[in-house]
Amino acid sequence: MDVVYSRTHLKHAPARFIRLGEWADNPETPARAENLVAAARAAGHRVIAPDDFGASPRRAVHGAAHLAFLESAHRRWLQLDGASDDLVPNAHPIRHGAAYPEGVVGQAGWHIADTACPIGPGSWEAACASANVAVHAAQLVLDGAPAAYGICRPPGHHAFDDLSGGFCLLNNIAIAAEHMRAKISRVAILDIDVHHGNGTQGIFYERGDVLFVSVHADPSAFYPFFTGYGDERGAGAGEGATLNLPVALGEGDDAYVAAIGRGVAAIAAYRPEALLISLGFDAYVDDPLSPLAVTSGGFEAAGAAIAGLGLPTVLIQEGGYDCRTLGRNLMAFLAGFLG
Amino acid sequence: MDVVYSRTHLKHAPARFIRLGEWADNPETPARAENLVAAARAAGHRVIAPDDFGASPRRAVHGAAHLAFLESAHRRWLQLDGASDDLVPNAHPIRHGAAYPEGVVGQAGWHIADTACPIGPGSWEAACASANVAVHAAQLVLDGAPAAYGICRPPGHHAFDDLSGGFCLLNNIAIAAEHMRAKISRVAILDIDVHHGNGTQGIFYERGDVLFVSVHADPSAFYPFFTGYGDERGAGAGEGATLNLPVALGEGDDAYVAAIGRGVAAIAAYRPEALLISLGFDAYVDDPLSPLAVTSGGFEAAGAAIAGLGLPTVLIQEGGYDCRTLGRNLMAFLAGFLG
Repeated sequence: MDVVYSRTHLKHAPARFIRLGEWADNPETPARAENLVAAARAAGHRVIAPDDFGASPRRAVHGAAHLAFLESAHRRWLQLDGASDDLVPNAHPIRHGAAYPEGVVGQAGWHIADTACPIGPGSWEAACASANVAVHAAQLVLDGAPAAYGICRPPGHHAFDDLSGGFCLLNNIAIAAEHMRAKISRVAILDIDVHHGNGTQGIFYERGDVLFVSVHADPSAFYPFFTGYGDERGAGAGEGATLNLPVALGEGDDAYVAAIGRGVAAIAAYRPEALLISLGFDAYVDDPLSPLAVTSGGFEAAGAAIAGLGLPTVLIQEGGYDCRTLGRNLMAFLAGFLG
Repeated sequence: MDVVYSRTHLKHAPARFIRLGEWADNPETPARAENLVAAARAAGHRVIAPDDFGASPRRAVHGAAHLAFLESAHRRWLQLDGASDDLVPNAHPIRHGAAYPEGVVGQAGWHIADTACPIGPGSWEAACASANVAVHAAQLVLDGAPAAYGICRPPGHHAFDDLSGGFCLLNNIAIAAEHMRAKISRVAILDIDVHHGNGTQGIFYERGDVLFVSVHADPSAFYPFFTGYGDERGAGAGEGATLNLPVALGEGDDAYVAAIGRGVAAIAAYRPEALLISLGFDAYVDDPLSPLAVTSGGFEAAGAAIAGLGLPTVLIQEGGYDCRTLGRNLMAFLAGFLG
């Protein structure tokens, strides 16, 4: 299987984020992607660099103001007296009517939902490369490959059309899905990262041509908190094309794989022409952010369940923060998926 | 003039807040209110403690979920492994549909708009006392006093019905205004703090019985960023009952006092039965948060302009962060106001 990877992710390396009122080491490190690509190479997969697809794919998903903010934000941030090295928002427009402000601090609160999305000097370039990785993997499948894997970093599934968050700047899988939709009429996205794919859901919530299914830890006391509940089923033309399958905190392989089985059944019933997977390994028992206890065997079972659909499949990397085991869990997933 | 003051504010003393991606010393210190009350005493004003008006006044302005959150938040926060001493939100529900989460981290992002509203162990008690100070000052005016002054701390004008922010937990002036509205039919609020009174505006935005006028620094690159623009004029029954008079950054007495003059004229035309003033001294030239350059003479002129309305007037303390000069600027304002 071809694996798409860009070294440009190394330019995005914010050291910290704010969690529970304190600085914490940023777990979304460059070492994550390096561990994954090393495992892919060691297993004999061909690793290729992505083409540059330009601005069109990201413009198909994200608003112009959001892209302009992300591109200029860090440079403007550094012009502020006393600003930190990496941009972190500190004031947000919540519920009550809000006008779009001119300054970067206000815009940061407008375009970033939380303090877990620091932006450094190379973040924009890395985000664009990450989107290219996703589009390239999608193109390989459009061109006839049964599957391809994009090592996207930064990840993407928490990014809405006009709002970044949770380590995600651009929504790579949404960009890849839109790229495929130009050629085929129906695609499905299955998100098995431990966090709800809130951005992806938001982007396609009123769309009937993209089924979105997410298996994740119950968000009522876990990031992203505000979405991912079972009663979110889509709206308008997308009514019924969103399916959330939250798993109770503390659960392991059985509940996780069972939920994926339910998601796979819903995807089969939808009859898409292609499938995209938001592939996170942060449900892993030893992941520092995980409230679940999934083992490598759980990821292997997930891969096998997904393979059972027999669909052309684009694998897009999302989270997973235990660097030592990312490659091992990727291999476990692929053992199930590739058979 | 009677001055209402409660020592309970001393229980609210968060040491830090997050600004521009870094911790900063919290400028909203207990010393602020101590400086103000010392100046009031030195000038011979009678300082009295507020009655306890119970929960009704705050329930008249704030939703039950918001009050329950504020009351329980710090205790629940401390139960989280690795939480900071004072609660600071880190994830927010912005624009895209959001369900109300169960956990305190998600609820913190729901109920607090920014990182400049830390909540410590005594914050709730202090906020309730601050609201009592405001209600007591309002009651003195209802009882016939031509004016009364409440040294409210924490301040209040950035707090919406369901959202705290900017050092403000409960909206003291809105609570006082509602208390007066039970007895009289029309009141006006004039906010001369350097920051837009976004919470107060939000609470009364669709109300025709409370005129809200705010003079503040242009928010396009200054807190609270998202509101305070001239085109916000109220809605529904409140159409025309909101007036924002932003002052360009860098301006001094002339522009500030001129804007207050315009606000005073609008209040006179509204013909309220009573007036409430959100009294901030953070437009002061030496205030650490000020982008304006108002002098003590400017505050004296503001006081005189307000006195010209000849209305029963409740003065409610909001911001002002240069502790050394708060009392002096209060005396300057009162020199103009009391004549």
